[in-house]
Amino acid sequence: MCTAIKYKNNFYGRNLDLEYELPWTKVIIMPKNYLLKFKSNNENIDIKYSLIGMGMIANEYPLFYDAMNEKGMFMAGLYFNGYAKYFEKQNDKNNVTPFEFIPYILGSCSSVDEAKKILQNVNIVDIPFSKEIPLTPLHWIICDDKQCIVVESTSDGLQIYDNPYKTLTNNPRFNFHLENMNNYVNISPDSRTNLFDSNIKIISNGAGTIGLPGSLTSQDRFVRAAFTNSVSTSNNNDEDISQFFHILDSVAQTRGTVHAHENKNELTVYSDCYDFNNKTLYYKTYSNNRLTAISLNNSYDKNKLTSYDLELKQDIKWVK
Amino acid sequence: MCTAIKYKNNFYGRNLDLEYELPWTKVIIMPKNYLLKFKSNNENIDIKYSLIGMGMIANEYPLFYDAMNEKGMFMAGLYFNGYAKYFEKQNDKNNVTPFEFIPYILGSCSSVDEAKKILQNVNIVDIPFSKEIPLTPLHWIICDDKQCIVVESTSDGLQIYDNPYKTLTNNPRFNFHLENMNNYVNISPDSRTNLFDSNIKIISNGAGTIGLPGSLTSQDRFVRAAFTNSVSTSNNNDEDISQFFHILDSVAQTRGTVHAHENKNELTVYSDCYDFNNKTLYYKTYSNNRLTAISLNNSYDKNKLTSYDLELKQDIKWVK
Amino acid sequence: MCTAIKYKNNFYGRNLDLEYELPWTKVIIMPKNYLLKFKSNNENIDIKYSLIGMGMIANEYPLFYDAMNEKGMFMAGLYFNGYAKYFEKQNDKNNVTPFEFIPYILGSCSSVDEAKKILQNVNIVDIPFSKEIPLTPLHWIICDDKQCIVVESTSDGLQIYDNPYKTLTNNPRFNFHLENMNNYVNISPDSRTNLFDSNIKIISNGAGTIGLPGSLTSQDRFVRAAFTNSVSTSNNNDEDISQFFHILDSVAQTRGTVHAHENKNELTVYSDCYDFNNKTLYYKTYSNNRLTAISLNNSYDKNKLTSYDLELKQDIKWVK
Amino acid sequence: MCTAIKYKNNFYGRNLDLEYELPWTKVIIMPKNYLLKFKSNNENIDIKYSLIGMGMIANEYPLFYDAMNEKGMFMAGLYFNGYAKYFEKQNDKNNVTPFEFIPYILGSCSSVDEAKKILQNVNIVDIPFSKEIPLTPLHWIICDDKQCIVVESTSDGLQIYDNPYKTLTNNPRFNFHLENMNNYVNISPDSRTNLFDSNIKIISNGAGTIGLPGSLTSQDRFVRAAFTNSVSTSNNNDEDISQFFHILDSVAQTRGTVHAHENKNELTVYSDCYDFNNKTLYYKTYSNNRLTAISLNNSYDKNKLTSYDLELKQDIKWVK
Repeated sequence: MCTAIKYKNNFYGRNLDLEYELPWTKVIIMPKNYLLKFKSNNENIDIKYSLIGMGMIANEYPLFYDAMNEKGMFMAGLYFNGYAKYFEKQNDKNNVTPFEFIPYILGSCSSVDEAKKILQNVNIVDIPFSKEIPLTPLHWIICDDKQCIVVESTSDGLQIYDNPYKTLTNNPRFNFHLENMNNYVNISPDSRTNLFDSNIKIISNGAGTIGLPGSLTSQDRFVRAAFTNSVSTSNNNDEDISQFFHILDSVAQTRGTVHAHENKNELTVYSDCYDFNNKTLYYKTYSNNRLTAISLNNSYDKNKLTSYDLELKQDIKWVK
Repeated sequence: MCTAIKYKNNFYGRNLDLEYELPWTKVIIMPKNYLLKFKSNNENIDIKYSLIGMGMIANEYPLFYDAMNEKGMFMAGLYFNGYAKYFEKQNDKNNVTPFEFIPYILGSCSSVDEAKKILQNVNIVDIPFSKEIPLTPLHWIICDDKQCIVVESTSDGLQIYDNPYKTLTNNPRFNFHLENMNNYVNISPDSRTNLFDSNIKIISNGAGTIGLPGSLTSQDRFVRAAFTNSVSTSNNNDEDISQFFHILDSVAQTRGTVHAHENKNELTVYSDCYDFNNKTLYYKTYSNNRLTAISLNNSYDKNKLTSYDLELKQDIKWVK
Repeated sequence: MCTAIKYKNNFYGRNLDLEYELPWTKVIIMPKNYLLKFKSNNENIDIKYSLIGMGMIANEYPLFYDAMNEKGMFMAGLYFNGYAKYFEKQNDKNNVTPFEFIPYILGSCSSVDEAKKILQNVNIVDIPFSKEIPLTPLHWIICDDKQCIVVESTSDGLQIYDNPYKTLTNNPRFNFHLENMNNYVNISPDSRTNLFDSNIKIISNGAGTIGLPGSLTSQDRFVRAAFTNSVSTSNNNDEDISQFFHILDSVAQTRGTVHAHENKNELTVYSDCYDFNNKTLYYKTYSNNRLTAISLNNSYDKNKLTSYDLELKQDIKWVK
Repeated sequence: MCTAIKYKNNFYGRNLDLEYELPWTKVIIMPKNYLLKFKSNNENIDIKYSLIGMGMIANEYPLFYDAMNEKGMFMAGLYFNGYAKYFEKQNDKNNVTPFEFIPYILGSCSSVDEAKKILQNVNIVDIPFSKEIPLTPLHWIICDDKQCIVVESTSDGLQIYDNPYKTLTNNPRFNFHLENMNNYVNISPDSRTNLFDSNIKIISNGAGTIGLPGSLTSQDRFVRAAFTNSVSTSNNNDEDISQFFHILDSVAQTRGTVHAHENKNELTVYSDCYDFNNKTLYYKTYSNNRLTAISLNNSYDKNKLTSYDLELKQDIKWVK
């Protein structure tokens, strides 16, 4: 499944965990004023801001898994199966399909505050992209440099949560994850005195982190990512980027540890990091450790989608 | 602290976790017949096989943290503070200092079976390298393509253990880690029916791994590495190398999560992987995701140590 | 804090956990037609059914902590601090204070189905019993021989949940506890093969219960009670009663393990069990292991409250 | 399986956990100078001190599960299957069978210091009591008011350990349990500030005990008993006795939670407590909550074994 985080004020990104390859996944740049039409009413989506993101292109339509706009706002959709509920069209609402939701928000908002206003009137509708591409059950994390929120469309309607942990994984509802942190109030990076029996010498560094859960479930990945994120430190932009991927590595899925349906191996297909400051997307793939970077500041055709294949081959530096 | 693993039959390596930088660390190639003398008696160490490894060089002496010889045997020393005990010189024994132990074994043995014989008569002596470089408390993992053992010199003398988990971390003694696996007999990658209450639908993939411990202690890293290693799969040499580093990532230390003494941050300084087949060392550092590779098949001066600085700068591929 | 359970169809009861003694606690029998008036409007509460329960008496008013009526319906209030919210009086609602809630429901309903109907129109109001006895933040479990529900009055209003685990503890909201069971899907009483590594012989019975949480928090007590309750077996009425108290013992608070505010020790003041069939209350106290039984079939004055002091002195059978 | 503890200086006892009933179990008083002969050489065992204990009688021979002598020394045997190893007779040793071990030590020693001396020369021999009663794999806890030790006869020979946790359960070896306590250094009864995120209000008392393991395995029962024992408090002799049984309750086995071989339910057959001061044995059984007490100060026949049936029927005080 997936894990998304915001680190410090300026870095956002996610692991995409799946049990199948995504050979069609690309880095996509969508220019401002790109023409997209709402499925619900055939009107234009207002794309005031250009976007860079991960996704696939179908019939000239960018289906984003996660993206950042030119204002540095980030949004990602994460699997939410069994909880996501999409609704019928409502006439008094802005009806948005799940696959339109990222370009709709990032194309028209320059901040989370703006998004919050728009979200008051949003109805997520259950219209699929096509027969071949059905709807995916999702919830979303939206961040800018000032704040971080979660949006869920469930049987209770559209819910918007502030996200103090700057983390999102998958099931169950976000408010469960918030309450669940109460089971981890004793986790700490500090080397501590033995609270149980001071006669005993602590035999390992990291004893303050005992109790941190290690499973690959969404509940445990949330705790691990939230903890690691909250105590992470780095001292400059280079270290920030490295640190970001180390945080994601701590909740990545390794091939073999999770058998998804039909016993296929779930793994972290890609990990990415968006840098607010230089409007750049960094990513690595399961098969290639080296980071690749693509910037919104690249020169690209302003009239169509630009896409870049993922770097999948292990790119080793051979020293002779 | 540290984690070492053997993956499949042909890949070995480790995370080196420390709370300080090791700017003097280098990749070192030591040619066969290189002249090293035992500290205990000034006689030559028999260096029949060339070595490639990680370490530092002091006065033309290679102080290896981990290494592989030209026969594909691997050995690494891991921190064992509070349990390691080194002894006085004994006349009827082969007296070896901790810092001589890796070149002694890898220089003279072509297999773990040979090493096991030699170890019958070894006494680890408490003679430091120099005033400036005191002895480090260590235990060792030794592997070839057929087997994997652990060597500990404690108050009980020299202990040699078969290592069915092909994993070594740090404290406490190895036999604790072996017994401790009994607390994790229910961990599995399989998607399972709910054993507690079959009326409840399992809400997250990875539910079979619930109970996997997530702390950064040596006890928990052992379990996590042993589990992840044992269920890992990969289908060709490229995937093997990638998979190896993913296993190490799952037990890596992220800056900020572990405050070691003086509240310094412990982190995974480097991760390396030795490939038995092509006698090559792959590594990455905390600050640089890209893999670097150096092979024993490189051409190098057969009369002296050859060393290579570590690649510490993040080496990003910028796509324009 | 507290734990309540329903075992099989016919046994209900609870641990009352507090950090102070309750010397005023008594077993109380309230006869049918006893005169109680609603605080909100001074009208009579309809007491169609006699009650037996634990509580205190203030000014001839029975303040029940838990009780059963002559129809065998059970209800208990459990601490719910930080989540319980009581409201102002609403004219179109049945306004009931927390301390009236147990006699109101048990006095007028002969089944949970009846209670569910009444609850549709209930508003829990924030009127204290007296200056000296302020309101306690509570949520409630209501059971009969057919079903079990939970009632919570929170900032979301009055919530009624079916309770498939037949268990209630304290914070947080009940739906958290429901979702949280997903973290324990692998717990089982069965002796199992080693799922991790079949080469290893399991060294202890009970290995299927590894992962069962052992803390004294309400979250962990819920899981432990729900599991123990769900797998419990007993073969006749005597065994049922014994088994009931063993289940409660498994989540009891032992003096010293939980320091509540002002570092006072929280402990299980009493444990009780109501038997639907013979309309009898069994209980034991922290200081006295022996069970005491009092039945609604006792002869008692039908015009006033009858009360019995708790048996607090350890009642040992001395064999000479 | 089983759990034994020493509480404060003066109270010792155990849970006996088994998957079958022990209808033949009795409280046994053995007078001093009672005639027992060593199986290994037919010489008399020196019974200087009278004993009271739990066990069965076969052919006038007391097979004690646990006992206390008139000097207030306590000893119990606990299941140690897969680790216990008994040896052939050795001529230069005091050869003692497992079933002789309790009367041998408690009959001849007035303190653990004395026992320690005798144990230097003990060899536990593999001679069964009879064809019908084979040897049980056991290890032993021995306590007096000053100290507590554990004795294990394994493939490493006879091991004697000081027992700082005053607790014994079952597998694996005792030194594992000692090291394992390092995984619980953060457990505390204290109400604590949130170490993870001070913005979050802790929602449950007992948060300091999060991480305490709740399974019924011997490893987890050791931790839970050691913790609960170490933080327990009580203020007078009555409270001490009550508290002792509460500690044992916290590690008791409830019928249904552990399926032993042939899917039989393991449960806590009896719990007992020996009071050093008044030389009295208190016990309760799974089916009867009330405590029964029998004292060595009772008048009994000094020439033969005296035995008392266990009180198995629930002894309820009915209040009319």
